[in-house]
Amino acid sequence: MKLIRPLVAKLQPYVPGEQPKISGLVKLNTNENPYPPAPAVLTAVKAAVDDRFRLYPNPVAQSLREKLARLHGCEPENIIAGNGSDELLAMLVRCFADPAPAGAQAKVPASAVVQFLRPCYSLYPVLVAIHGAAANAVPLGADFSLPRVAELRRGGEWNFKAALTFITTPNAPSGRGYASADLEAICQAQRGVVVLDEAYVDFARENALALALKYPNVIVARTFSKAYSLCFQRIGYCVGAKPLIEALHKIRDSYNVNGLGQVAAEATLENLPYYRANFKKIIATRERLTQKLGELGFETHPSQTNFILVRPPRFPAKQWLEKLREQKVLVRWFKDPAVTDFLRISIGSEAQADALLKAARRIMR
Amino acid sequence: MKLIRPLVAKLQPYVPGEQPKISGLVKLNTNENPYPPAPAVLTAVKAAVDDRFRLYPNPVAQSLREKLARLHGCEPENIIAGNGSDELLAMLVRCFADPAPAGAQAKVPASAVVQFLRPCYSLYPVLVAIHGAAANAVPLGADFSLPRVAELRRGGEWNFKAALTFITTPNAPSGRGYASADLEAICQAQRGVVVLDEAYVDFARENALALALKYPNVIVARTFSKAYSLCFQRIGYCVGAKPLIEALHKIRDSYNVNGLGQVAAEATLENLPYYRANFKKIIATRERLTQKLGELGFETHPSQTNFILVRPPRFPAKQWLEKLREQKVLVRWFKDPAVTDFLRISIGSEAQADALLKAARRIMR
Repeated sequence: MKLIRPLVAKLQPYVPGEQPKISGLVKLNTNENPYPPAPAVLTAVKAAVDDRFRLYPNPVAQSLREKLARLHGCEPENIIAGNGSDELLAMLVRCFADPAPAGAQAKVPASAVVQFLRPCYSLYPVLVAIHGAAANAVPLGADFSLPRVAELRRGGEWNFKAALTFITTPNAPSGRGYASADLEAICQAQRGVVVLDEAYVDFARENALALALKYPNVIVARTFSKAYSLCFQRIGYCVGAKPLIEALHKIRDSYNVNGLGQVAAEATLENLPYYRANFKKIIATRERLTQKLGELGFETHPSQTNFILVRPPRFPAKQWLEKLREQKVLVRWFKDPAVTDFLRISIGSEAQADALLKAARRIMR
Repeated sequence: MKLIRPLVAKLQPYVPGEQPKISGLVKLNTNENPYPPAPAVLTAVKAAVDDRFRLYPNPVAQSLREKLARLHGCEPENIIAGNGSDELLAMLVRCFADPAPAGAQAKVPASAVVQFLRPCYSLYPVLVAIHGAAANAVPLGADFSLPRVAELRRGGEWNFKAALTFITTPNAPSGRGYASADLEAICQAQRGVVVLDEAYVDFARENALALALKYPNVIVARTFSKAYSLCFQRIGYCVGAKPLIEALHKIRDSYNVNGLGQVAAEATLENLPYYRANFKKIIATRERLTQKLGELGFETHPSQTNFILVRPPRFPAKQWLEKLREQKVLVRWFKDPAVTDFLRISIGSEAQADALLKAARRIMR
């Protein structure tokens, strides 16, 4: 008798970007924010480090959800908070997709299909495999554009009955932004749940949050990690119709959001102007870096996120990854054939962008 | 087409003990520690509230696992840390048990059976239902004693091939402790994975951690919440054979343990004498409270945890729950028929125990 499920034994786990132990590296590999949280956030967290540690945190992050509801013009029952949006993405798969029936010949029902556009956040296929559901990956356009519904209908690969559809918007790892109208057309056409994963939306021109409050089958996922400099404390959330959110709450771990994370996220919402000023700085750095890399011969794509995807000149992307690391600059490279010729570079501070450009020039010499 | 899986739609979610918003209540309902964390733990956490918030925490809690490995005489690869032990219990179900095949008449294979002794931590059956596995609940003795393997073999209800068996040891909600030799006999007899859930073991006479390092099919689950006053920051861990732990890592969320939680847990391990002194105080309060409640006519059971299960005199347990609440004392009552005549009372400080006794005397007058 096998102790470990065959499904788990054959899993290829998700490999997160390196968190280096060596200091002094220019870390542009995991889309972290170069700017620290607002000083008032750190003060609020420090003030909460006390005897309350012995007590359980609020199990539903009530106060945080109330503040988010005010921000988004909805009710707390439209919101669920998670241990980072990664936890919520995993819960979405478990909540809305069935495991596929066993046996190689078994027909896969639409209720077990989880669909996404490739390339996308590389975690989705891993989550689908963990749950034993069936993945349906459909390619984006060559310029990472979102196919129109009419094209999807023609293509035949797309499944309009898929239990769950993930759309990373703006797209990762390309950085491409999508128009809400195009997203809305897909949401209307899908019969299952559509998740708009807006992890990077604060760096984009528009967001699609309104769709989550308009349609019974749409959920928007957000995170405090990147835009709000809170990776360390793991806070994400989903917004959607109450029946969908209620279903997610049913399968949630009882106390899934740690107490100081709740405190930090609440304080963040009291200091939004600080963060909005940072978004502007990051966007300015992004535009400058895109231009400068273009001048160096990199193929660049317009980004609406805090990273850019570039096709480097002269050497293969994987060699660039290694050469940049030798220069103490960490960027990200993916095995996924759709983007294997590219590097994904997080937008750091101005000084970090300069360090990257300097290293690139040195490599090309 | 249904948006929500039928399995999820019919779930009865776990209801955690109340976290009251009113202050001034004597809170003896969720087995929290009456004593705060060691001052050095709070100092260490405060010192970590800084720019690092913008970065992801260590994805595998490496430094914490190294310290735990030294404590338990094993290697970091024998350990996985979780977002509270609740997250790990849910992962154990997903990692080691298959969902049961659909259809009422379908035969349930042993690979889909999750087994536990009743009463137990009331979360297990909820986790089994969420995963769609099959629960096999077998009653403990009337005095909450663990059946011997020979009795289990006679009884016929027990499944020696179950994919996963949970044993809460010491037992919750009864507080009864178990001999490692009896636990070992069950571990040897089971062909699937056995999880010894030692959430309360620091208040017990013996622990069974050695079994997790001796047998290929045994996992011990521990938590920092209760004994180490860290409920707020959500840290639990499992110890077991490397192949089992590796399988759990494969299905783990990438950054499942928040950064300040890692800092707090590591600092806790540097301050164990402080906590051991508290265990002694709590055990002394437990023994005194057990005796005094016995004198008032409560049926008591010897406990090896930081709570006691008592059958109250005169009124039904549920009425006692309400009457105590009127007196501003919160305790826990369960619907589970196995313990519905009982109240579970967390062991608080000496003053809290006095407040409970005073309220009980007032109710009985």
